[in-house]
Amino acid sequence: MTDFDLNKLKFNDQGLIVAITQDTKTKAVLMQAWMNKESIIETLNSGFATYFSRSRNSLWKKGETSGNLQKLVSITADCDLDSILLEVEQSGKGACHTGKYSCFFNQI
Amino acid sequence: MTDFDLNKLKFNDQGLIVAITQDTKTKAVLMQAWMNKESIIETLNSGFATYFSRSRNSLWKKGETSGNLQKLVSITADCDLDSILLEVEQSGKGACHTGKYSCFFNQI
Repeated sequence: MTDFDLNKLKFNDQGLIVAITQDTKTKAVLMQAWMNKESIIETLNSGFATYFSRSRNSLWKKGETSGNLQKLVSITADCDLDSILLEVEQSGKGACHTGKYSCFFNQI
Repeated sequence: MTDFDLNKLKFNDQGLIVAITQDTKTKAVLMQAWMNKESIIETLNSGFATYFSRSRNSLWKKGETSGNLQKLVSITADCDLDSILLEVEQSGKGACHTGKYSCFFNQI
């Protein structure tokens, strides 16, 4: 699966780590969600981004109902191992539940 | 400064929100840090990315000592307003305290 020791990642008190998802083609940042160790393993094994839903308290395979799956290209952890970046091939119209391509659309 | 009501942002129990920083030229994700309302205001007013350091419990102007400042291009909040994306012009060699261009370099 991976030679990287996932126990080195610094999960927070809830066992979660910040996950940032980027479109490997356009390089757009699509969304930010949370992952636990189990969801990272599921993502690596299945090849599709699977997050941890804090509201539903369960794993959440992105696009399972909408069809807008995210095919995994790579996962990279940051320097202090408390944040991870997913590069994905985004299927369908985009990543956001609003129908938009990226979740980041509210200009401040 | 901005017409966006910063009180609409969903800060966590510590008054913080996930901040993702992207290089506006290369589109690389440079780092992930945290911001509070004050640091967002300071970033908008100064035009340079200013985060909240959880370890030092204070505002932290990125690159203040290293010179690797991040000139603000835009801030965008996501669909559920609990995460923000900064686009910046990165000065110097990069964003990471290790000397690397991006903090995301640990392949999983």
